Amino acid sequence: MALKFDILKKHNKTRLGKLYTRHGIVHTPAFMPVGTCGTVKAMLPESVESTGAEIILGNTYHLMLRPGADLVEKMGGLHKFMNWNRPILTDSGGFQVMSLKGLRKLTEEGVSFKSHIDGKTFFLTPEESIGIQHKLDSNITMSLDECTPFPATYAEAQISMQRSMRWAQRSRDAFQDRDGYGIFGIQQGSIFKDLREESATKLKKIGFDGYAIGGLAVGEGQEKMFEVLDYAPEMLPEDKPRYLMGVGKPDDIVGAVLRGVDMFDCVMPTRSGRTAQAFTDYGPINIRNARHREDPRPVEAECDCPLCRNYSRAYIHHLQKCNEILAVMLLSWHNIRYYERLMQKIRQALSQDTLEDFVKDFYKKQQQGDIEPLV
Amino acid sequence: MALKFDILKKHNKTRLGKLYTRHGIVHTPAFMPVGTCGTVKAMLPESVESTGAEIILGNTYHLMLRPGADLVEKMGGLHKFMNWNRPILTDSGGFQVMSLKGLRKLTEEGVSFKSHIDGKTFFLTPEESIGIQHKLDSNITMSLDECTPFPATYAEAQISMQRSMRWAQRSRDAFQDRDGYGIFGIQQGSIFKDLREESATKLKKIGFDGYAIGGLAVGEGQEKMFEVLDYAPEMLPEDKPRYLMGVGKPDDIVGAVLRGVDMFDCVMPTRSGRTAQAFTDYGPINIRNARHREDPRPVEAECDCPLCRNYSRAYIHHLQKCNEILAVMLLSWHNIRYYERLMQKIRQALSQDTLEDFVKDFYKKQQQGDIEPLV
Repeated sequence: MALKFDILKKHNKTRLGKLYTRHGIVHTPAFMPVGTCGTVKAMLPESVESTGAEIILGNTYHLMLRPGADLVEKMGGLHKFMNWNRPILTDSGGFQVMSLKGLRKLTEEGVSFKSHIDGKTFFLTPEESIGIQHKLDSNITMSLDECTPFPATYAEAQISMQRSMRWAQRSRDAFQDRDGYGIFGIQQGSIFKDLREESATKLKKIGFDGYAIGGLAVGEGQEKMFEVLDYAPEMLPEDKPRYLMGVGKPDDIVGAVLRGVDMFDCVMPTRSGRTAQAFTDYGPINIRNARHREDPRPVEAECDCPLCRNYSRAYIHHLQKCNEILAVMLLSWHNIRYYERLMQKIRQALSQDTLEDFVKDFYKKQQQGDIEPLV
Repeated sequence: MALKFDILKKHNKTRLGKLYTRHGIVHTPAFMPVGTCGTVKAMLPESVESTGAEIILGNTYHLMLRPGADLVEKMGGLHKFMNWNRPILTDSGGFQVMSLKGLRKLTEEGVSFKSHIDGKTFFLTPEESIGIQHKLDSNITMSLDECTPFPATYAEAQISMQRSMRWAQRSRDAFQDRDGYGIFGIQQGSIFKDLREESATKLKKIGFDGYAIGGLAVGEGQEKMFEVLDYAPEMLPEDKPRYLMGVGKPDDIVGAVLRGVDMFDCVMPTRSGRTAQAFTDYGPINIRNARHREDPRPVEAECDCPLCRNYSRAYIHHLQKCNEILAVMLLSWHNIRYYERLMQKIRQALSQDTLEDFVKDFYKKQQQGDIEPLV
């Protein structure tokens, strides 16, 4: 089997699993930090690993433009190039290319686009995307698809989904099976249940190592997203990992886990780290806020990351005011550790049959808000 | 004794020493990375420590403006605030204030200036500077002086130096003696030997725990600097550490060590790290240069820093082209490690009586230049 996936335990729709890859095991539910250009921004890979992250995401679009897939291949693949020896999932490049409005042209064959860096023209097809992901030596290759924009009419969503399913077949055909490597298909269909069903049926017929739920977290809001997640995951094979692309905020993740999703990725922890935001059990805080200026307390007393172990809020506030890189380094680290701790707590609760208590406690703390300012 | 200094060995003018502070021992000749705003830019303090750095420099001017000396004191001092538990030397703030041309006014009493951040007016006197350094809990306090601009006429240099000597007395008077803490006086006199002599005589009469050589590396060039260093260090007490402020390039440091200097600080390793420059035994390289684009070799084969152990030149080149923070992090780390390795090699050569061989080898490699590009 290309990618072995064991489900160790289930609680209602939620699953505790283990995904085996050539570069190691991923315990699910799992969160994947994003390493867009071959680096999880402002983090050493050993620091990423220390957060408990077992897999990261690389962006095919960015890497194909810079430094180029051939160079990464020549340097021994993405793992070696970026010094990350654990699993890597790469997206197909489709999402970024499709969002280049005015710079790209979509046909049945593929999508031509101009690079945002130097204006050079590229043509991305399912075969090309899979070929690039092979060169990157990605453990989990994603099929090329169109992430249907939101809102879309039924007809638009249908046309888009059906083309994505033809591309899914072409992606699967272009993928070279290797032990410990796999390819995921991506369900589309916008917020229309029968299109989601049609998409799932087509993907299952092709047969993939895992299944992503695409076309969500694109502006529809959490309520609508959860409505789709109330039915979409169960349309996908029970015995394969399910991946919700580009999600999300901590409570998006908890809600999706409860609806049967196993894998997540999001730029939020690192991007927030660059804008002074720190995630905490009691909701996010902005360290630039004046109330932290003289606060000797850590960002989170319970957190074991370097930011929380070694520094006061006052110090991080100071670094941030001075635009010091160390602020970004420490906040990114904290935020990824926050996400990985969240996943660890979910897995632990599943393992100890205490998921419902965990979820109740999670929402209670999030609503409670951050500690009071010092008087 | 406030600061104990042992000279373990001498070779011609060069000294191998140990400086004992409340926060640990500094082996000399020593290089101090600069932590301007309470952080060595883009480095975790544990990474700074791993380079072999035993002492860092903090900038009084920056810290008094942001976050303010009172806040740092309230947070337990600079060591605790920034999580650096080894020795700290702080400058007096004078150098930065004097360079605020048009924004500052110099009188016998002190210097008034407007903050570059918010335009607020401050008045810095010797007593005020020493008081701030106490609040920061600096292990080595520097006297407030005027770094005489270059070029200066004899008369200008004399007036400036003599005022600095009056301020040195006031600084010494304001300093509170504590075990493991000390204050350094600063020799001025521009490039005039008799003024350097007069300055040294006055400083010795006051009596300090160490002596800095100021007013160099301000545009006079290496040749003129070495001319002054041919006589200035020996004017200072034999049994106290000598510190050449703001120096410098690797060959400046080697030349100054040969002339009897024990301590150095410079922003060059970290600043260069932010502009793609890496120091090597074979001279500096700019990693942005296209010849590194496909080079699988490390920046320096002999270096044990994370950049050289784990990454290719091709990868660092890629990060730099993408303006990734990790490039700055790794280059800053490498450059500080380069400086600290240089100091370690100097100390080892002194200890093994091979200083002359080391120096010959150092200049030979620097002239030889970087490894050939791959064909």
